Amino acid sequence: MKAEIISVGTELLLGQIVDTNAAFLARRLAELGVELYRRVTVGDNPERLKKALQEALQRADLVITIGGLGPTDDDLTREMAAEVMGLPLVLDQAAWEDIQTYFRKLNRPLTENNKKQAQIPQGGKALANRWGTAAGVWAEKDGKCVLCLPGPPKELEPMFEEEVLPLLAARAQGTITSTVLKIASLGESLVAEKISDLLREQTNPTIAPLVQDGEVILRLTSRARDREEAARLMAPLEEELHRRLGTAIYGRDGDTLASVVVELLASFGQTLATAESCTGGLLASRITDVPGASEVFGLGVVAYSNQAKEELLGVPKELLEKEGAVSSLVAEAMAKGIQKRASSHWGIGITGIAGPTGGTPQKPVGLVYLALARGKDCEVHKLHWPGSREAVRRRTVNFALDLLRQKLLRQEKNNQCRNN
Amino acid sequence: MKAEIISVGTELLLGQIVDTNAAFLARRLAELGVELYRRVTVGDNPERLKKALQEALQRADLVITIGGLGPTDDDLTREMAAEVMGLPLVLDQAAWEDIQTYFRKLNRPLTENNKKQAQIPQGGKALANRWGTAAGVWAEKDGKCVLCLPGPPKELEPMFEEEVLPLLAARAQGTITSTVLKIASLGESLVAEKISDLLREQTNPTIAPLVQDGEVILRLTSRARDREEAARLMAPLEEELHRRLGTAIYGRDGDTLASVVVELLASFGQTLATAESCTGGLLASRITDVPGASEVFGLGVVAYSNQAKEELLGVPKELLEKEGAVSSLVAEAMAKGIQKRASSHWGIGITGIAGPTGGTPQKPVGLVYLALARGKDCEVHKLHWPGSREAVRRRTVNFALDLLRQKLLRQEKNNQCRNN
Repeated sequence: MKAEIISVGTELLLGQIVDTNAAFLARRLAELGVELYRRVTVGDNPERLKKALQEALQRADLVITIGGLGPTDDDLTREMAAEVMGLPLVLDQAAWEDIQTYFRKLNRPLTENNKKQAQIPQGGKALANRWGTAAGVWAEKDGKCVLCLPGPPKELEPMFEEEVLPLLAARAQGTITSTVLKIASLGESLVAEKISDLLREQTNPTIAPLVQDGEVILRLTSRARDREEAARLMAPLEEELHRRLGTAIYGRDGDTLASVVVELLASFGQTLATAESCTGGLLASRITDVPGASEVFGLGVVAYSNQAKEELLGVPKELLEKEGAVSSLVAEAMAKGIQKRASSHWGIGITGIAGPTGGTPQKPVGLVYLALARGKDCEVHKLHWPGSREAVRRRTVNFALDLLRQKLLRQEKNNQCRNN
Repeated sequence: MKAEIISVGTELLLGQIVDTNAAFLARRLAELGVELYRRVTVGDNPERLKKALQEALQRADLVITIGGLGPTDDDLTREMAAEVMGLPLVLDQAAWEDIQTYFRKLNRPLTENNKKQAQIPQGGKALANRWGTAAGVWAEKDGKCVLCLPGPPKELEPMFEEEVLPLLAARAQGTITSTVLKIASLGESLVAEKISDLLREQTNPTIAPLVQDGEVILRLTSRARDREEAARLMAPLEEELHRRLGTAIYGRDGDTLASVVVELLASFGQTLATAESCTGGLLASRITDVPGASEVFGLGVVAYSNQAKEELLGVPKELLEKEGAVSSLVAEAMAKGIQKRASSHWGIGITGIAGPTGGTPQKPVGLVYLALARGKDCEVHKLHWPGSREAVRRRTVNFALDLLRQKLLRQEKNNQCRNN
């Protein structure tokens, strides 16, 4: 199947918003094996939209429009879609009732305008919108399909996953399942190298390596007759990926590095406390981002000044004077100090030079000492990151979380060995 | 002038990257008063790219391509641009020398392939790329212009600002200046309402309200003969916007709410310490994001547990038991406790329920108490935010920063009154 996407909206031509919808759809179509031929963006102008629809229908079997389904006069996508397909618009009673219910719940007045949001080309299918008012449209004629989706990503994405996927799967006669594996501490090229043969030979399931928020992820998508077959297809690939990438795979789908660490700590009934200088609370903030973090995290200190390092963490004054605040021994004293102060199982101490100023030839910008204390043990890592202040801080926090995760995994393994 | 943008790259049709370049160019063109008629995305396919170029040149005076200027065989934008314009490609000696210098600096081997990155259509202009290897292209024929820009945003954006703007300004005979005003604590619709007449009547300078990272900004752009005239045009509009929006405008261009607070504190020689429960270090992290924050910020405590609140902040045990950790009096005790502990001028205490669980009918999710202590005074704000855990935490931190900013501005004003 060949597809094209038409994004509709003057705000896109004015650059007021970035078109993440088109990227989302493009990625999902690729995963489904649908070839995307072209993407086009036009403004809220009926003639130009009509022209774009006509051209796209000549080239593609499936034309997907994004936006222009609102209640106002300049929202003209459903009208133009119907006109180009030569089909009259009719009211979809179920969609109209959904809109009325939606407005009742919000206690907002309903206008006659909203009625047009429940109209679809004759013989087509209204796609339910549980996250907004505009019904989506699926219309077919002469072997060509037009799919109209609403503009807000919060409406478009679930509508695609819940309403459109089954329609595309029905055409493909089967089901499509997708899962994401998340990877820590390995770059995209290294991941690609380790699985290059799997990437080259992929058929079903497919594997797509992507970078999201500075992290490498692998999205696996399988097409099958039913869910059971999909699971059967997915299992050996996932197993092979785990064998190749080992503990570099830290989680799946909704997991974050911090959520996995919080979960591991909770499973052992262990606690963590943090003492941060150059990361300035970013580590504590990432941990407390996780719902339920209070079970494993009670205290963090942002000891930016030497005075705070002395008074709250018990770092000896002489040590600060002799070694300097950015040193291996101070990181160690910070980790041990916060561990003692919080009576926690684990303590992390971080001190470094995030930049852009404050570096010297001996202690350049990007130099960070990171200490991890556990019981009476403590290990210190000397790190040197390239990049901006923001990058140095982010990379240090990711390193700390991944280090602790690896330790917890080893602890888990040791426990299992002892139990066997 | 009518323009169209053609984004080139199979990775865009696979949804592997979001096209922020097209949005950047669209916004800058709008600010320059160039009408963008259509945006198109095609893959790395010479025939489809050629077709898209031909179609676009029929509709527009200026066609801008993004990407496909690399050294490999599937990078074909400059070849197709030359072909469609009927111009032969010739080597630009200066561009070729730039590429050689670039490789020498990086100590990387130069290949014959790279030579094609210095080729441009005869009679055209090579646009210098100080941030990568591919030269940009500006070519004119029969009153139509083709502009080819490289795909990496770090190359495209400065090339547009430094190389393309003067060319467009020369066509418009003058200079174009742009500045951003940043707004705190007011939503987009309220801002638009307060300046609706200015938005309606805008000519030169233009005003564009945008939402960036959850914040409202106003981008002002003026066209003028020279910089002096531009400044003369901008001044009265900026003055009027400040009159309408008052201290809601917190800064301009590179400023952040945190950087403005750090700067104000530094100007008074004052210091801040933070005691966070539900925001879990996010406030400290935002402050220490600012280079030089150590001058005004020495200590933050993330007191997630009641024990930490008692031991490090001196919150009385009885108070925690009687009022509960999420209460006005505990917030106050936290702010005063950290202020005393750090011997700082200002202390902020935050306690609340970020959710998604932990709420009760009396203390629902989203309830936050925020205390600001200064000398012997302390004020407490009871807040109730809608939204996710992440939204509750972010909004609370923005509120805290803006509250402190407003206090510091008042202090500045009082000082000025006393001095007069």
